[in-house]
Amino acid sequence: MNGAHSLLATLVDHGVDVCFANPGTSEMHFVAALDAVPQMRGILTLFEGVATGAADGYARMADKPAAVLLHLGPGLGNGLANLHNARRAHTPMIVVVGDHATYHKKYDAPLESDIDALAGTVSGWVHRTVDTGAVAGDAADAVAASLVGAVSTLILPADVSWTDGVSTAPVRVVAEQPAVDDEAVRASADALRSGAPTVILIGGDATRKPGLSAAVRIAAATGALVLCETFPARLERGAGVPAVERLAYFAEAAQAQLEGAAHLILAGAKSPVSFFAYPGKPSDLVPEGCDVHVIAEYRGAAAALERLAEELAPGSTAVVAPAVRPDLPTGDLTAFAVAAVVGALLPEGAVVVDESNTGGVGVAAATAGAPAHDVLTLTGGAIGYGMPAAVGAAVAAPGRPVLSLQADGSAMYTLSALWTQARENLDVTTVIFDNGAYDILRIELQRVGAASTAPGPKALELLDLGSPAIDFVKIAEGMGVPARRATTVEELAAALTAAFAEPGPHLIDAVVPSLAG
Amino acid sequence: MNGAHSLLATLVDHGVDVCFANPGTSEMHFVAALDAVPQMRGILTLFEGVATGAADGYARMADKPAAVLLHLGPGLGNGLANLHNARRAHTPMIVVVGDHATYHKKYDAPLESDIDALAGTVSGWVHRTVDTGAVAGDAADAVAASLVGAVSTLILPADVSWTDGVSTAPVRVVAEQPAVDDEAVRASADALRSGAPTVILIGGDATRKPGLSAAVRIAAATGALVLCETFPARLERGAGVPAVERLAYFAEAAQAQLEGAAHLILAGAKSPVSFFAYPGKPSDLVPEGCDVHVIAEYRGAAAALERLAEELAPGSTAVVAPAVRPDLPTGDLTAFAVAAVVGALLPEGAVVVDESNTGGVGVAAATAGAPAHDVLTLTGGAIGYGMPAAVGAAVAAPGRPVLSLQADGSAMYTLSALWTQARENLDVTTVIFDNGAYDILRIELQRVGAASTAPGPKALELLDLGSPAIDFVKIAEGMGVPARRATTVEELAAALTAAFAEPGPHLIDAVVPSLAG
Repeated sequence: MNGAHSLLATLVDHGVDVCFANPGTSEMHFVAALDAVPQMRGILTLFEGVATGAADGYARMADKPAAVLLHLGPGLGNGLANLHNARRAHTPMIVVVGDHATYHKKYDAPLESDIDALAGTVSGWVHRTVDTGAVAGDAADAVAASLVGAVSTLILPADVSWTDGVSTAPVRVVAEQPAVDDEAVRASADALRSGAPTVILIGGDATRKPGLSAAVRIAAATGALVLCETFPARLERGAGVPAVERLAYFAEAAQAQLEGAAHLILAGAKSPVSFFAYPGKPSDLVPEGCDVHVIAEYRGAAAALERLAEELAPGSTAVVAPAVRPDLPTGDLTAFAVAAVVGALLPEGAVVVDESNTGGVGVAAATAGAPAHDVLTLTGGAIGYGMPAAVGAAVAAPGRPVLSLQADGSAMYTLSALWTQARENLDVTTVIFDNGAYDILRIELQRVGAASTAPGPKALELLDLGSPAIDFVKIAEGMGVPARRATTVEELAAALTAAFAEPGPHLIDAVVPSLAG
Repeated sequence: MNGAHSLLATLVDHGVDVCFANPGTSEMHFVAALDAVPQMRGILTLFEGVATGAADGYARMADKPAAVLLHLGPGLGNGLANLHNARRAHTPMIVVVGDHATYHKKYDAPLESDIDALAGTVSGWVHRTVDTGAVAGDAADAVAASLVGAVSTLILPADVSWTDGVSTAPVRVVAEQPAVDDEAVRASADALRSGAPTVILIGGDATRKPGLSAAVRIAAATGALVLCETFPARLERGAGVPAVERLAYFAEAAQAQLEGAAHLILAGAKSPVSFFAYPGKPSDLVPEGCDVHVIAEYRGAAAALERLAEELAPGSTAVVAPAVRPDLPTGDLTAFAVAAVVGALLPEGAVVVDESNTGGVGVAAATAGAPAHDVLTLTGGAIGYGMPAAVGAAVAAPGRPVLSLQADGSAMYTLSALWTQARENLDVTTVIFDNGAYDILRIELQRVGAASTAPGPKALELLDLGSPAIDFVKIAEGMGVPARRATTVEELAAALTAAFAEPGPHLIDAVVPSLAG
C-alpha cells in the first residue's frame, strides 16, 4: 500500500468518502489509488475554486467533511477564495495539496511555491507529511482537527504518495461539543429578566431548528428580539420552522435593527460590525452603552440557547412560520418579481444556495412561508461561491432539490461548476439575476462617497457587464446544462416549474433591471 | 487630491498607464479616481486571474509594467496563479490590493484575511501604505521595485484611498541593467575554446534578437549547442530571426539534448531541472561531471552573450531561420495538422500565446520558418494563463495579431478572458486544441508509474473532459466572441484565414484526437 492508498483508506475509515478533485501530475498516485478504495467517490471539477466551494456546500449539508484534492501552490491559490468562505462558515474540510517530491523541492522547479504560507491563511490546521509511515496518522489528525469547524490542509509530497510503506491505523477521533458555560447562561438570563431591551444575535450551530426554537421561545417569554447573523452558514427556515430575521447587510439598516438595545446576547454569532468601512460611519454596530454577553461561540450555541430557554421559558413551544406563499406575480420581470416567483414555486425540502447579492434582496421575504428549506449563504464575502456550493449541496443531499440563486457578476468567477453539475447529473436549478452590472458596486460607489457628484464614465464602465451582454443560456448549454432565458414573469414561472419537475441541472437566465437606479 | 487619485497620478507619471481591474467596495475610490486621471486606461476583467494574467502578457510585450486592481485577500487569492507565472517570467507588475480601512481591520469583518502573507508568496516587493501622504512615494517605490522584473504589491487601505492629503511627487526611478561580469565571461570563453562539448542554455532577456544573435554566433564559431529554456517569457523566432531549440519539457528528452556536455553555460536561464519528480529518475538534469558556468542572471544575459560573441566570433553575423512554411495539410484534423495549418497561415508580426500543452506539441516545428513572431509561454506551469495573457498582449501591441493557442482543459480556468477580449475588441484569435481530456495527465499517469498495469476507470474518469463534451463555440458566443468549430483541416484553414482577416476576437474549436493513445 502506497501513501496515496493509505490516505484514501484512512479518510474513508473516518467517514470522509467524497473528494472534489482538480489534480495534476504530482497527484497522479492519489488519482490512481481511487480505484483501490471503492468507497471514495472522486468528483472532477475543472477549476480549484469549484472543488473548494463544493466541499463547503457539501459539509454544510452533510454535517461531515469532504476532501478536496489540489495541485501545488497555484492550485491552492485558485481554491483560496472559497476556502476563505469555508473558514468564515466554520466548515470542516480536508484539503489535500499535492507537492513536489521531498527531494525535488530544493531545485525550485517552475511550480515550486510557498504552499504552507498560503494554507496558513485559511486553515485551522496545516501539516506537511514527510514520510509514508506517517500518512494515516496525519490524515486522522486532519479529520479530527476539521471537526471543530475548520479547514485542515494536508500537504502531500509526491514521493510520500508513491512510496510503499506501513501506515498505522489510527483511532477515530470525535470532536466533542463544548460544555455549556453556566456562568454565561446566568448572565444572559439576568439580562433578559431585567426587562431592558435585549437583542439575541444567533449564528454558528444555532441557526438550525433546535437553536431557532430555543431562541424564539426565549424571545416570546422575555420580549427580546432575535436576529440571525447576516451570513449564516446554514439557516433552516420556511413553513413549520421558527422564523428569525437576519441582521441587515448595509450598516445603516443593521444599526436600525439594533437601535436601543441595552443588552446584546451573542449565541454563536460574532459581535456585529460593518461589512466594509464607510467614511464617517462607525465600524462597530453595537449601540453605545449596550452590554454584550457572549453565551456561546459558533459550536454549542444551540445547546446554550436550549439551556437558557429551559430557564426562562420552561415547557413552552416555539412559534413557527405559517405556510404562506406569495401569489405568482404579473407584470414586468423585476428582481422582486423573481423573488415572488421563487416564493410561489419553491419545492418542499429545497436547499437554497444564495449568491444573488443585490438581485436577491426580495427573496427572504418572499420565501418566509414557503415549504421548509435550508439557505446557505456567502459567509466570507468572497464571490464565486454559489454555483460550486450548489454542486456540493446536491452531492450531500441527493434527494433534495437545490436552488442556486446567482448574481450575474459573481457567476463569472467559478462558472465551470455548471459542467460538474451536468457531469454528475445533479438536481440543481440555477437562476441568474441578470441585471448586466456589478449592481452592488453601483450602490457602493454612492455609499462610500466616492462619487459625491455624478460618477464619471470611466468609473461606471468598470461596473458595467452589459457590453457585451453575457449570454448565460449559451454558456450553460456549452457546459452541458439545459438553459432558458426569461424576460417575463410568465416565462420565469414556466421555466422554473419545468426545471423543478425534471431531475438534473437547469439554468434560467432571468433578465431584470438594475436596482441601483 | 485623495490617496486613490494620488496613486493613479503617480503611476501614470511613471509610465504605468493601463490597469486591469476587478474591483470591489474597498476600491471604489480608486475606480472613481479613474475619471480624474484620463491617461490611465482601466480595463475590466470578470475574474482576478484574468487581470493578473493580462498584466503579465502586457508587460512581456510592452516592456513596461501594467497595474492590476484587486479586492482584498480573496481577490488576490484568485489572482495568485497568474502572479506565480509572472514571478517565474520576471514580469514587472504593480498589483494594488484594496484593503479594509486601517481602523476597520481590528473588527475582523467577513472579508478580513492575511493579504500580506498571500502577497509575499509571489511578490518581489510588498508594502502596506498607512497614510495618504505616503501614497505617491510608495507607488514610485513599487514601480521601481518592479522594474528589476518582479511583482510589486501595494496594499491600499480604503481610508488611505479616500482621505485627502498632499503626496510628494517622487523622482522617477530607473532600474539599471547589471554590469557584465568579466570574470564569468572569461570562464565561459575558456570553456568554449577548450573544444569540449558545450551547451549554452539561454533565458531571461537573451531570448530576443540581440541575445539570440550573439548566442548563435558563438555556437557557429565554437561548435557549442544553443538551447533555450523550456518556458521562455518571450521568445522571438521565425523567418529572419536566429533559431534556437528549446529544452524539452519531458526530462528524458531534455537529458538527451544535454547528454555528453562537458560544460553548461547558463545565460539568463536557471540550471535545468525536471519539471516534476518521477520515481527513480533524476531531478537535476545537468549531466554528471558537467561544469556549470553562470554567465548572467535573467537580466543582462543578452549583454553578456554579446560580450562573449565579440570575444569568440568578432565581426561574424548570425545565421537566421529561412522563410519556409509547411504546405496546408490534408486528411484528418490531428494536433499535428492543426500545427501545420498554423504554420501555413501565421500572419506577419504575430504574438503567439502558447498554452496548448500536449496538443501544441507540433507547433514549434511547424512555425519555425513562419514570418517573425513572438511566443509567450507558461513560465510557471500554473494553467489558466493563456487567454488572459492574450488580452494583455493585444492591449500592449495593438497593431499585431495575437494567436492564443489553448488546450481545452486549461481554457476552463480563466474563461472569462474571452469577454474582456470582446469588450475591448482585441485582435485575438483563440484556437482550442479540443481533445476532450486532460491529455497531459493521461501521459503523466503512465510516466509517474502510478498505473503500472492499466489505469482504473475511476482514475481515467478524473482525466476525462468529454462527459459532457464542452462546447467552446457556445461558451465563446456567450461571452461575445464569434466562434466556429473545425473538425477537418479545411474547416480549420478557412476559419483561421477568416479570423486573421477580420479584426477583433475570434475562437476556433479545433476538435482533435487525444495524443495519449
